[in-house]
Amino acid sequence: MTPFQPGFSGSTFDRADQLRGDAAAIADLLRHPQARLLQLQGFDPALTPEGALVWESLEELALGDSNSASLILLGLQDGVPHFVGLQQHSAEAPLYRTPRAMEVLSLLGPQDMATYGTARSLIDWHGRHRFCGKCGGATVAHRAGWGRRCSVCESEHFPRVDPVVIMLAEHGGRALLGRQASWPKGRYSALAGFLEPGETVEEAVARELFEEAGVLASAVRYVTSQAWPFPAQLMLACIAEVQDDALRIDTNELEDAVWLSREEVRAALAGDPDARFLLPPAYAVAHSLLQHWAWPDETK
Amino acid sequence: MTPFQPGFSGSTFDRADQLRGDAAAIADLLRHPQARLLQLQGFDPALTPEGALVWESLEELALGDSNSASLILLGLQDGVPHFVGLQQHSAEAPLYRTPRAMEVLSLLGPQDMATYGTARSLIDWHGRHRFCGKCGGATVAHRAGWGRRCSVCESEHFPRVDPVVIMLAEHGGRALLGRQASWPKGRYSALAGFLEPGETVEEAVARELFEEAGVLASAVRYVTSQAWPFPAQLMLACIAEVQDDALRIDTNELEDAVWLSREEVRAALAGDPDARFLLPPAYAVAHSLLQHWAWPDETK
Repeated sequence: MTPFQPGFSGSTFDRADQLRGDAAAIADLLRHPQARLLQLQGFDPALTPEGALVWESLEELALGDSNSASLILLGLQDGVPHFVGLQQHSAEAPLYRTPRAMEVLSLLGPQDMATYGTARSLIDWHGRHRFCGKCGGATVAHRAGWGRRCSVCESEHFPRVDPVVIMLAEHGGRALLGRQASWPKGRYSALAGFLEPGETVEEAVARELFEEAGVLASAVRYVTSQAWPFPAQLMLACIAEVQDDALRIDTNELEDAVWLSREEVRAALAGDPDARFLLPPAYAVAHSLLQHWAWPDETK
Repeated sequence: MTPFQPGFSGSTFDRADQLRGDAAAIADLLRHPQARLLQLQGFDPALTPEGALVWESLEELALGDSNSASLILLGLQDGVPHFVGLQQHSAEAPLYRTPRAMEVLSLLGPQDMATYGTARSLIDWHGRHRFCGKCGGATVAHRAGWGRRCSVCESEHFPRVDPVVIMLAEHGGRALLGRQASWPKGRYSALAGFLEPGETVEEAVARELFEEAGVLASAVRYVTSQAWPFPAQLMLACIAEVQDDALRIDTNELEDAVWLSREEVRAALAGDPDARFLLPPAYAVAHSLLQHWAWPDETK
């Protein structure tokens, strides 16, 4: 069993929020002799032969001051600043994850996964917010990449994070998992959906379970959370006791949903070749949620 | 002691997500003989003499089809559709809460508070997203007010919810509360801050406590959540055990921070006129969090 730490978490970077708005401090960081710049392949991570992220020396790039606005300060590690370039992606195409990105992710350690996730979410946010939602004016990055300001109405815009609830319904010692038609054959995972304005986490969990599977939640407990960088979700993982195990599946959302016993979930987590279903990848919070449900005492 | 239910929660509306994209179904709802439209005074709630929200009959308004795009479907109550008008507010001024709104909120019951909160968040979101962040084109409301589409590049935009962590640090049986200089005299509340891309809830709690008060979290537990409609925060309320009670206050964020005992918090919650501090309002999740901390066994 892998330790109970959701993917994309565990970064030891100091995000140095207090420096972002301080132009002199950022200029100093850009001149730091060990300042590092994250290398990407398109928007996927570049990897060393050992499976780590690749960093370039910022000094060697000899960036002029005019280019500093195109860098995002990811944070400091032992005082050394780490940046990523603010690549623009096409306004037409959202930056979906590539098969290569998903493959590469499973090779990264927690720190690198968290660093890449943060970088990716921010780059994507910049690409989707080049214009001001209020007035349509062009926006310009500022605060070391942690904001954009409208060049016309001067509105400030801050990176967006979308809360998503992801949950197991629980009834009679079994957990409810579902699958979407587009997923790899045999894969089942927790149900999930975007939280809407005006909802608590607990209300969103109950609504999604009812909409997608027709089950009524009587109690919801929060388990853990994860940042999911495609593009910038906050995954809020919960377990909901439901009143009845009769299902009414919304076939627009789910191809199938099944109740699984702890033994069946444990078999899948243990890598049993005869397991009844294929797990979500280890870096998905659904995997952590299943671990927690399967072994609640070991995964607090 | 009031029951442990955070403000703006407990709506019994069916949000009817499955109908939003169905133009024929929405047209039917608009023609429903009992369809209701929420009345606002500016962006504040209008109130009946009994302190309830005011609803107008939609039929009496005799809206043409061309006006249906300016209504947001809040949901169904016993099959009766409830709408709010999509008022545009000035692009220059964000829609901050007025003193009157805060006064009125304390008069509303949970259902009305939740309904108003949802309406307010959505109206504000529409006002701040009249143009496409990707291409600068004008956007048009669709999906019964639960989305906007760019008239140029056809990008879809969905209502934004910003996760915020709000937390009590806990050490030696005492809880840490702080105050901002702009608050009413004597008021202390939980520390809070926006969660950033790439962070878990638990990481954001630890970062904010360290940034604002210099305390190091060793364990974070989630307590409850709330939708806060000024304009659209998801408040994630937590308690964090910290390693040491020595404070290093960020005076840009906080005017003061103090450690308070359970007895001191209970006295404030019980309305003791000699209580050491003034509580946040009952509809703020900080109030629920303090209730939970003061009486953990009664507020599960």
